[in-house]
Amino acid sequence: MTVVILAMICGVIAVLYGVVTSRQILAASAGNQRMQEIAGAIQEGAKAYLGRQYRTIAIVGVVVAVIVAVFLGMVSATGFVIGALLSGVAGYIGMNISVRANVRTAEAARGSLQGGLTLAFRSGAVTGMLVAGLGLLAIAGFYWYLTDIAGNSPNDRIVIDALVALAFGASLISIFARLGGGIFTKAADVGADLVGKVEAGIPEDDPRNPAVIADNVGDNVGDCAGMAADLFETYVVTLGVTMVSVALLVQTSAAQLAALMALPLLVGGVCIITSIIGTYFVRLGGNQSIMGALYKGFWATVILAVPAIYFATQYALGDMHQVIGGAEFLQSATEGFPDGLVDTTTATGIAGGVTGMGLFWCMMIGLAVTGLLVWITEYYTGTGYRPVRSIAKASETGHGTNVIQGLAISLESTALPTLVIVVAVIAAYQIAGVIGIAFAATSMLALAGMVVALDAYGPVTDNAGGIAEMAGLEDEVRHRTDALDAVGNTTKAVTKGYAIGSAGLAALVLFGAYTTDLGIFFPDLAVDFTLSNPYVIVGLLLGALLPYLFGGMGMTAVGRAAGSVVEEVRAQFRDNPGIMEGTSRPNYARTVDLVTKAAIREMIVPSLLPVLAPLVVFFAVSAVAGRAEGFAALGALLLGVIVSGLFVAVSMTSGGGAWDNAKKYIEDGNHGGKGSEAHKAAVTGDTVGDPYKDTAGPAVNPMIKITNIVALLLLAALAHAAI
Amino acid sequence: MTVVILAMICGVIAVLYGVVTSRQILAASAGNQRMQEIAGAIQEGAKAYLGRQYRTIAIVGVVVAVIVAVFLGMVSATGFVIGALLSGVAGYIGMNISVRANVRTAEAARGSLQGGLTLAFRSGAVTGMLVAGLGLLAIAGFYWYLTDIAGNSPNDRIVIDALVALAFGASLISIFARLGGGIFTKAADVGADLVGKVEAGIPEDDPRNPAVIADNVGDNVGDCAGMAADLFETYVVTLGVTMVSVALLVQTSAAQLAALMALPLLVGGVCIITSIIGTYFVRLGGNQSIMGALYKGFWATVILAVPAIYFATQYALGDMHQVIGGAEFLQSATEGFPDGLVDTTTATGIAGGVTGMGLFWCMMIGLAVTGLLVWITEYYTGTGYRPVRSIAKASETGHGTNVIQGLAISLESTALPTLVIVVAVIAAYQIAGVIGIAFAATSMLALAGMVVALDAYGPVTDNAGGIAEMAGLEDEVRHRTDALDAVGNTTKAVTKGYAIGSAGLAALVLFGAYTTDLGIFFPDLAVDFTLSNPYVIVGLLLGALLPYLFGGMGMTAVGRAAGSVVEEVRAQFRDNPGIMEGTSRPNYARTVDLVTKAAIREMIVPSLLPVLAPLVVFFAVSAVAGRAEGFAALGALLLGVIVSGLFVAVSMTSGGGAWDNAKKYIEDGNHGGKGSEAHKAAVTGDTVGDPYKDTAGPAVNPMIKITNIVALLLLAALAHAAI
Repeated sequence: MTVVILAMICGVIAVLYGVVTSRQILAASAGNQRMQEIAGAIQEGAKAYLGRQYRTIAIVGVVVAVIVAVFLGMVSATGFVIGALLSGVAGYIGMNISVRANVRTAEAARGSLQGGLTLAFRSGAVTGMLVAGLGLLAIAGFYWYLTDIAGNSPNDRIVIDALVALAFGASLISIFARLGGGIFTKAADVGADLVGKVEAGIPEDDPRNPAVIADNVGDNVGDCAGMAADLFETYVVTLGVTMVSVALLVQTSAAQLAALMALPLLVGGVCIITSIIGTYFVRLGGNQSIMGALYKGFWATVILAVPAIYFATQYALGDMHQVIGGAEFLQSATEGFPDGLVDTTTATGIAGGVTGMGLFWCMMIGLAVTGLLVWITEYYTGTGYRPVRSIAKASETGHGTNVIQGLAISLESTALPTLVIVVAVIAAYQIAGVIGIAFAATSMLALAGMVVALDAYGPVTDNAGGIAEMAGLEDEVRHRTDALDAVGNTTKAVTKGYAIGSAGLAALVLFGAYTTDLGIFFPDLAVDFTLSNPYVIVGLLLGALLPYLFGGMGMTAVGRAAGSVVEEVRAQFRDNPGIMEGTSRPNYARTVDLVTKAAIREMIVPSLLPVLAPLVVFFAVSAVAGRAEGFAALGALLLGVIVSGLFVAVSMTSGGGAWDNAKKYIEDGNHGGKGSEAHKAAVTGDTVGDPYKDTAGPAVNPMIKITNIVALLLLAALAHAAI
Repeated sequence: MTVVILAMICGVIAVLYGVVTSRQILAASAGNQRMQEIAGAIQEGAKAYLGRQYRTIAIVGVVVAVIVAVFLGMVSATGFVIGALLSGVAGYIGMNISVRANVRTAEAARGSLQGGLTLAFRSGAVTGMLVAGLGLLAIAGFYWYLTDIAGNSPNDRIVIDALVALAFGASLISIFARLGGGIFTKAADVGADLVGKVEAGIPEDDPRNPAVIADNVGDNVGDCAGMAADLFETYVVTLGVTMVSVALLVQTSAAQLAALMALPLLVGGVCIITSIIGTYFVRLGGNQSIMGALYKGFWATVILAVPAIYFATQYALGDMHQVIGGAEFLQSATEGFPDGLVDTTTATGIAGGVTGMGLFWCMMIGLAVTGLLVWITEYYTGTGYRPVRSIAKASETGHGTNVIQGLAISLESTALPTLVIVVAVIAAYQIAGVIGIAFAATSMLALAGMVVALDAYGPVTDNAGGIAEMAGLEDEVRHRTDALDAVGNTTKAVTKGYAIGSAGLAALVLFGAYTTDLGIFFPDLAVDFTLSNPYVIVGLLLGALLPYLFGGMGMTAVGRAAGSVVEEVRAQFRDNPGIMEGTSRPNYARTVDLVTKAAIREMIVPSLLPVLAPLVVFFAVSAVAGRAEGFAALGALLLGVIVSGLFVAVSMTSGGGAWDNAKKYIEDGNHGGKGSEAHKAAVTGDTVGDPYKDTAGPAVNPMIKITNIVALLLLAALAHAAI
């Protein structure tokens, strides 16, 4: 059986797992009448929002698809549409299972903590496996069609362009979904908290708060659907760019090239299987540690992945020690290419080529990076360590010192992840060159099924707590869902650190693809990428600006939308005094509608920023200093976005998680506990951290990649136009 | 008369201006007994702190001086000591005049607003002219000695190394002074506010607050002495690096080279004269606008600088249209250099060389950048525009939304300065290559006398208000000092934007010097600075990390020190109930002593970070991948620090200024005015902004340059060792 078909079978298994597990979840009791009513309202709001969001994105999507079709042809346009559609589908399915699992988790938590945990985690696993499975099927299926059915060679330009276009489709949808969902969820959350907890003095998730349903809808459309679309994008882009970089950089026999291009797909496939096995390890131990239970699943997946990746590599490549792309191939394969174009040392790190064993070690580096990033994120956002505790302690002296310490931690939290990524880049490069970095990123993303499962579990438990509160369930139930939810803060932060870390690696590979493509398309253009070229410095500065401007826009959007939620809720309280007395029901739908409109309006401009910036910079610099400098500035812009985006994203997501858990740590009875002055200060920190960690920070991930992909497509389009 | 001697005469005039004006200030009345007592306590605290700070830095300084002497010889060590000593002197004099002008400003404000303005601004002008004058005398005098007296050629290695060592001395002191002073001032300010305004409910500067003297001491040692040392450094480094880059890059006749190297000195000199003239334009107009009065002085200086720079250039170079470093010189001058080393197109932008007129236009670009940065900073931190007003409005919905909007503005505020710098880099480079960028930076810094005057005015008025409050002067006096102080927030933000903007330009020139030096010292080493080299990417990432880590450390230090101030003040209130009743005096000195120790303890580690990081990265990467990759990573680290540091610094300083003025805007009666909930939220934002704008943000400026200078010295030391 061919390697690609084997990978597709793994993708089908993931989808089957999703279908079967969904049925199990739906078979569980959905609780009493009141619970179902509330869940129904959340479902309705989430569907209405996603429907409107997708309709808006569809307009942009159709325009872009037409542009892609005109400049790059129908095959690429098809790839774009597949990527875009499946990214949307991944988000939609994630939301769909999440809005059904929430109420069932609340009901199951009435029975036992284990019951709630199992249901919530299974629902997360459905989203996780569907994200990974659909991602794998999209890229493997499309690749299989283009090569085995349509008969193209693996490294034909049509295949490369189509894979890039597929990634572009996924990225474009995911930046809108991440940002729109992020604005929705945090505008509703911040608005509801401000007007409810702070002004009206009612608890979180109190049914008298007209914004409470919107808040719960937000968990599903932002933290679940937006996240799923984002990770789908990360998955597709990482596997896709690994294949593209192999096609562009490795000069070897046709058979070996085909095997090497299929390897990322098979690695993705076998890791889906280890992720599915891992889900069955998620069980509470004797110490009742929920984080411990989730980690058992995660570590089982990682440990099983080691032999799985080894055998996958062996299956795909045959001999693990045979040199690929060695000197003898390079000699013949570089014929026909412009002199000096194919930089064999850059491609393979060692002029003698790379072996299957070398790639295996690079993929082990990817697993190690994932493990280390998880551990570092846990350190910076867990309640058991210095960072969160220092923020909690600083809350004693007021709002100001809480925020100062939180910002200090968010700045500091970038250090260890950067060192891990730096060491990984050096090690993978020493073993197998740029290709080695690509395979390290691939093995990171191969774990996506399990990582997304851990993340998607969070919003379900958050919702379950809300439903328990609103339906007036026993206090014990709320305590159980709170315990489940507290862990969700850390797992959510973990996914973001993981996504941005892998984005750092993937973007380096994308940059490699850009420079190689440049040489292929414009062999006569001497582009000076050295740091002493001022246009390179200009590009770096403009690239570094993008995450700042994007982050500023995202934060402003949340602030503005949250402000209108506050005004809306105040108006409802004023016009209908019965709400606070509990005699009449607030108009939940009006708030949901308001946030929906605000989020969709606010997501457009910032999402277009990374799409348009590469084009503007290229054409502006080209006009001033010629095309070569335009390409130099554009290339530097890509690196500038990564270098700056990595820090902006990590600081925002870690800092936000730490603020959130500092509040939880105080609520657990430290520094005066709930209601103390320290708690009020911690609530402020949490509010500040919300748009940091759930709106601006995570959206930087798709932003980095979309900039890079647009640059690659621009190159291809310019080359087409030149012909 | 030689150009260098003319420049030195201008430096002497600046010092004379300082002496004469100081006498005028000291001749003014120092107010009543109580006012003099308070001012005496502030003086004592400030002197005690600076004394201790300088003793601590002296230990580091002596160690470094010995290292410089061993590796680079006695001449460089002498340069280092001169730079270090004069940087310290600039800070000390600034503090010294400031602690005497504060009480006299309060007394003068009893008479009229104009009286207070004149006294405070004159005292700022003393600091400003002494910073510029001493800076110019240091560099011009040392250069004159090395060339005219000791008989070296202008581009002899001994001269180049000595100028770099001089800059290193200034930088090393200034990073300690900026950070130590910044920690002192904000720890005292935040601590005093938290325990006074928030806990005890007493107004700012209430004499019952045991931290109130420490707070006023902080204005002098941080905002005045630290800032003066920082700007002294910026001045010396910018002029020095312009001279060094001319020596390294321009190949021309000995006479032309000497003229070109002396030009930055003369430009600095004539602009001191226009700055002195400018100070006499600072007068209130009919509209009583204080900002308007200060701007009159600033714009007069800028407008007069245009002809002054033109004639200075003509005087130094003779014919404005004669080509310097043209093809005929390049031919002969590059003989003896390794082939391809002297990249004439990089050096001069156009292969045909550069003219005096071209350099004049580059310097006009520098003036334009200064004007634009001032305007942009005013927009982002002035109470009349959208950014500050949006923060004030967001305060209505609470602490959280205030901080969210403030962070959004701080992120956004990086965009326009980046675009201005990018356009300036491109324009100056198109006219005259890297040299053009250097001259643009020089003309920016030539205005330092006036810019520092505007900045140093701020802490004097801040102190004057404190003294008026503590001495129980009439309310009218406090209103006048408050009006003077409000403008100080913007002028302080302006200086920081200006310093970091010029640092961006200067650092690009420093990087050019690094690559050129590399080629001279290690001609056989093929260092690959292209972006596709992973070690370049690694260097960029590690460089970008430094401002984050440094900022995180600085913020943590302020939070920790402020926490101990809160505990100390609480203890005094507890042990001595008479303090709050007004029957007994608090122990001011104990608080000053506590903050002094905390600030000095906390400044050491972060200040050493930029000194040691280049060494660690170079030796670590060299060990793994060889010396060439070590140099590549180190070079990229330098650019990474600039690219990331520019954004960190601008966002922190603009954001902090905006938060501060949003509070002031509310205190002016908007959104509920003083005591409203919005005001409380705005106080939180102001507290957060304090360490942002006065500790972490501004210290990034010397940090960027120290990293670059250490790299240059490392190169020279390695070359010495190799011989």
